[in-house]
This record gives sequence, C-alpha cells and structure tokens, in this order.
Amino acid sequence: MGGDQVVAAGEAARIVAVEAVLYRVPLAEALVDAGHGLHTHFELVTCRIVCADGVEGVGYTYTGGTGGGAIRALLREDIAPLLKGADAHDVEALAARMRATLHYLGVGGICGFAIAAADIALWDIRCKRLGKPLWQVAGGTDPAVRCYRGLIDLGYSDDQLLERVAAEFAAGHTGIKLKVGRPDIATDIRRVRAVRELIGTDRALMADANYSWDAPAAIAFARGVEDMNLAWFEEPVAHDDLDAYASVAAATAIPLASGENLRTPAEFGQAIAHHAIAVLQPDASNIGGITPWLDVARRAAAAGKPVASHGMHELHVSLMAAIPNAATLEIHSFPIDAYTTNPTTVTNGKTAAPNTTGSGVSFNTQRLKPHKIG
Amino acid sequence: MGGDQVVAAGEAARIVAVEAVLYRVPLAEALVDAGHGLHTHFELVTCRIVCADGVEGVGYTYTGGTGGGAIRALLREDIAPLLKGADAHDVEALAARMRATLHYLGVGGICGFAIAAADIALWDIRCKRLGKPLWQVAGGTDPAVRCYRGLIDLGYSDDQLLERVAAEFAAGHTGIKLKVGRPDIATDIRRVRAVRELIGTDRALMADANYSWDAPAAIAFARGVEDMNLAWFEEPVAHDDLDAYASVAAATAIPLASGENLRTPAEFGQAIAHHAIAVLQPDASNIGGITPWLDVARRAAAAGKPVASHGMHELHVSLMAAIPNAATLEIHSFPIDAYTTNPTTVTNGKTAAPNTTGSGVSFNTQRLKPHKIG
Ligand SMILES: [Mg+2]
Ligand SMILES: [Mg+2]
Repeated sequence: MGGDQVVAAGEAARIVAVEAVLYRVPLAEALVDAGHGLHTHFELVTCRIVCADGVEGVGYTYTGGTGGGAIRALLREDIAPLLKGADAHDVEALAARMRATLHYLGVGGICGFAIAAADIALWDIRCKRLGKPLWQVAGGTDPAVRCYRGLIDLGYSDDQLLERVAAEFAAGHTGIKLKVGRPDIATDIRRVRAVRELIGTDRALMADANYSWDAPAAIAFARGVEDMNLAWFEEPVAHDDLDAYASVAAATAIPLASGENLRTPAEFGQAIAHHAIAVLQPDASNIGGITPWLDVARRAAAAGKPVASHGMHELHVSLMAAIPNAATLEIHSFPIDAYTTNPTTVTNGKTAAPNTTGSGVSFNTQRLKPHKIG
Repeated sequence: MGGDQVVAAGEAARIVAVEAVLYRVPLAEALVDAGHGLHTHFELVTCRIVCADGVEGVGYTYTGGTGGGAIRALLREDIAPLLKGADAHDVEALAARMRATLHYLGVGGICGFAIAAADIALWDIRCKRLGKPLWQVAGGTDPAVRCYRGLIDLGYSDDQLLERVAAEFAAGHTGIKLKVGRPDIATDIRRVRAVRELIGTDRALMADANYSWDAPAAIAFARGVEDMNLAWFEEPVAHDDLDAYASVAAATAIPLASGENLRTPAEFGQAIAHHAIAVLQPDASNIGGITPWLDVARRAAAAGKPVASHGMHELHVSLMAAIPNAATLEIHSFPIDAYTTNPTTVTNGKTAAPNTTGSGVSFNTQRLKPHKIG
C-alpha cells in the first residue's frame, strides 16, 4: 500500500482515483417474476476508489439487466470529479454531497445505484483503515445472521418448484420465499399450499407478488393462504400506493413487507410510519449504499419494526449483523457468490458476516473477466 | 421522407432507428440558485427516432450540467432496443412499456429524463403523421400563452438584479421570478421588496427558494414579503416534506408552488391532493415527456389547481396552450433559444405555440455542433 509514495500526514486519505467498470453476467437459468418479467443477465458495476497513500476500496451495485451503462456513466462523469481530492474519511459528508449534487436528477432513481457503489467503496476504505470487518465497524457484536432463500421461480413448473425447494432445504436453508403475482391467483395459492405441505408447518415461508396485483387481487390471494403461516406477503401492490397497502392489511393477518422499490428517505419515512407495512426491506445497492441503509434500519428500529434486507446478501450480511432489529437476510438468486472470493455459506438457516478487514466483499476478477463490458 | 423506400402499409410506422446525442452547452453567464449552486453549462440530450417509411421525430431533455452521459447511456443501451420494431403510433403504450422496463431503476429518477427524450420524439412523429402542430394534437384551441421570466439570479448584486429585471420588462415580459433561499433571509426580503418597488404593484412577481429552507425560515421569509402580492412562493422547503409545506401554508396567504422535483405519479398525486400546494409545476423533461405531463395537468385540472410549467418553455408552450388550467409559462434562463430554429418571442407578457407541424422544437445542429460530446 503506497510503499514508494511520499504523502503528507494529513493527505494520506485524499482520494486520487475513482474508477468504474461494468460487467454483464449471464444467469445459469432464466428467472421470471411478476413485476420485472424475464431475467437473463444481471449487471454488476464496480467502483474502485484509491487514496493518496495507496489504501483502496471497492464498492459495487447491481441491476436486473437494465441501466448498468447509465450507472457507470454517472460514476465516471459526475461522481468521480466530485470525490477526487476529498478526504475519504468523510464518508457521511461525501454521501450527502453526492446526493445533493445529483438531486435534480431525481432522488431515489439511478443515482441511488451509482452513489451506492461509491459509498460502499468509501466504507471499505473506512474499515480497512480501522483494520476491522464491516459488521464490527457498523456496530455489531455477533456476526451470526438468520437467513432465507429468495427464489425467482415464476417460470418453474410445479414439479420444478417442489424439487428446487427440497434442494434448498437439503443445502442448509430453513426458510424460503416464492414468487406469486400471476393473473391466475388460484395457481399461486395452490403453489404456496403445496410448498407449505412439502416443508412442514414450522419452516419460514414467504410470498412476493412484485407489485403486480391491485388490492382486490392481493386480498383474494391472502385469503387463499391465510392459514399457511406466511412470515410475510411482499409487495402485494404498488410500492407507492399506501392506500392499497392499507386495504390489504385490513383484510389479512399476514404481515406485509415493502422496501426494494422504496428509494428515498421520504418513501421509507412514510412506509415506516404506516401501520400497513410490518417489515422493511431496504437494499443498499439501490438506495445509495451503506450510509442510507443504516439510517433506514435505525429509523425502523425506532418504530419497532424489523428489517429483512433485499438482495445483495454478500454485503447485507454484515449490516444485518450490526442492527438490533434484523429479521432475516435474503439469500438472493443472482449467482453473485460465483464471482466473489468468499461465497456465502448457509448452515441450518444461518450464515455469518465475514471477519475479513473491509466490506467483506471482494470480487474474483478472473471469473468476472469474460463478462466485462468495460 | 422515405421516397425511395418500399414499405408495406402496416409497416410504415415501424421504428427502425433510435439514436441519442449528448451536448454540453456553456452558459453565457454562470447562474446560481440556493438548491443547485453554480450552473456553468447545461446538458442537452437529443433522441432521434426513425420509422420504416422515413418519417422521423426528435425529442430531447436537459440537465443542469450533471447526468447527461447517464441519460444518453439509458437511451442507447436500454430504451433503443425496447423501441426498435415497435409501432410508433403506440405512444402511450410505449411510454408505459419504457416505464415498466426501467421500473427497478427507480421511478422518477434519471429514467424520467431518458424516457422524456424518447416520448417527445414519438409525439413529434405523431404530430408529423397528423400534419398538425403539437398544441392542436394535444387538444388546444388557441396558441396564445401567458408567460413570465424565471431568473437564476442568486449571484447577482442588488444593482445587477434591478438592471436585469428592468431589461426583461423592456424586452416584453410582464412577470418575473426571483431566486431566494439564502441563509440571510433579510437580504432575500429586501431584494424582493426592491424589485416590487421597481416594477409596480400589478406585475406578476414570484420567489423561488429551491427547497433550501426549513419551515421556520420559509415562514420568516413569507412574513417579510406578505404585502408584496407574490403570485406564488416556489419550493419553500423540501419537495417531499408535505408536513413542512403545510406549516408554511398555515402561516402565509401566499400560494405555494411545487413540481420541478416531483417526478412520480404518486408524488404528483400527493401534491395535487394536498391543500398546501396551490400551483403545480410539472416539467416534461424530467418526468418522462409529454405523456405524463398531460396526465399531471389533467389531474391538476380535476382538482381545480393551475399548472405553471417549469423550464423547457420551447416545448411547454405547446402543452400550456392545450390545457384549460394553464396559469403562466416559465421562460427559463438556459439559452436554449440560441440553439433552436424558432426562438420563443415574448410580447406584452404573452407568447404563442409554434404552428409548425410536429413538436414545434427543432434544433440548429450547426450551432450545437461545437458543444457535441457524441
Ligand atoms: Mg421482492
Ligand atoms: Mg424552481
């Protein structure tokens, strides 16, 4: 780290380089959900930040296959000039400055993805300078985290679905989330009931409609699975239609969950304050990184509500280990673990935050290389 | 238009090309407001859509200097593949499809800018196929539109401000909007009072804080100009803090305005329904184009609220001419008229929608050329 550089003491953490790279990574199988349709690739955008003394951090974000080029452009053209020359210690101030500079482009949109990649790189640097793992720097006392498997299974036949669920449980999972949200509600009800029968009454089971129903359809589904002991019913309706959430909540005892399409402090504030939303699901990759994720988690804790992270498990595991109101970590279906140096392992429904210094996520650049766009 | 092409009848409007170009255009003077700081350039992103029979349309959006590369990337990499092969007649269906495809990237963010450029190009094609100007296709009966001058004047001395206001009135304007939002509220009050004294009691005068105050500061300002007959007080507080808007509204009789930072149907729905917001200010360039702009205007009309467009006057003039609840068109401070073939002219506080076939906006590509990024 900067062995042959001579750097003034106060200058060590000055940011001297910010680089962004886009990868387009194929999925082993095409995945389908009700909101986003077919996934065949995911996009990974990495951001490398280098300090004057040679300490560097890597952050990243991902998309479901759309917008990666725009995120890279924001990082290269707008965020890099803003960060260069700044003190990398000022993580929260830089998060605020990035947000303010990009404000007119729309709080909560693609800027949240690009800022996330930079913010995570700054946290990686912070942890490395402290010589500690992220779960400790973020305030945790125990790296163990409860988790569940999130499937993207709308395209599976019934047989495929049951086989896949059995395989996930055989591999160490004790909880699973299914996709629902079909126009044919009866099929979704039948599939949830079949999975519950397969796994027994006590294992965690959730359903996710990816905001594809209106309130009457979501209520019809909820009534059909009311006795299935669902841990939550995720995105039954549009994320920004809190009246529809209220209608569904009034008709079912199943807790409702929302978060992966909430992106702004105001949206999270409304959801946290709203009686109809029981479980908050922030995603650091789309709301601007670790800084706002911890803020959302703290605000949810103050309101007595649990957090169940969405996606990005390889990073969220360290954040979930750091908060008192962690419900359960989603182990998502993008094959990110094939491209990191420390794949997440699950035993009896638990995993653990990495004890390595830094964010705990480092990429296997050799394996990513064939998918590099530039 | 496609004279030497042979195209099957049903195929004429099939989209065969979608191109995006980014320009970075310097401002003649650096402009300052309280929310965004210094502007030295604006970015123009154009989108050209070509149909199988050779009919083509040009749409565009702009930014205050940040994010243009990301908008171009979205158009080239994500929107172009989605539009190619579609029927250009299906403007509303294509708007919905673009929105759905980019949904996970954040409703209301940069996607709204990129979709705007494509949507405006599709409306340009629609108007050209109908052989009519936009103001008629959008439903207008009279092209005349009341307008006012929006200054970005926070960096002006008092003398410069008064000179500039006098020059604008001499040039045909009868209404003007000043920037406020300084930490030093007394200075803002003094400047508003000085301009009112200069222009007399009856001319339209507005103040815009660019969301830089909290409610107590905004109320202190409002009290200091309560007797100045302001037409509205724009963005006194954060766009997504409706409680703060309510506090300000309760303390002043000056109508409050919001819109340039509202981007999603849900945000506009909340603002239109909220008693504290009297004037809606949608901007087609940042909410996805003409299709959602007309939708916002219709919803405001249904609630009995006026629309005062934000920015992009060269296009909004045709939309304001088409709606029954048009208050006054902002003639904004970016020098777009230097780069179009039909600059907006103002006489006695009025302007008129262009009678040319199409969107009414066509660019002088020779004058833009030196500012082309690619
Ligand atoms: Mg989900
Ligand atoms: Mg304004």
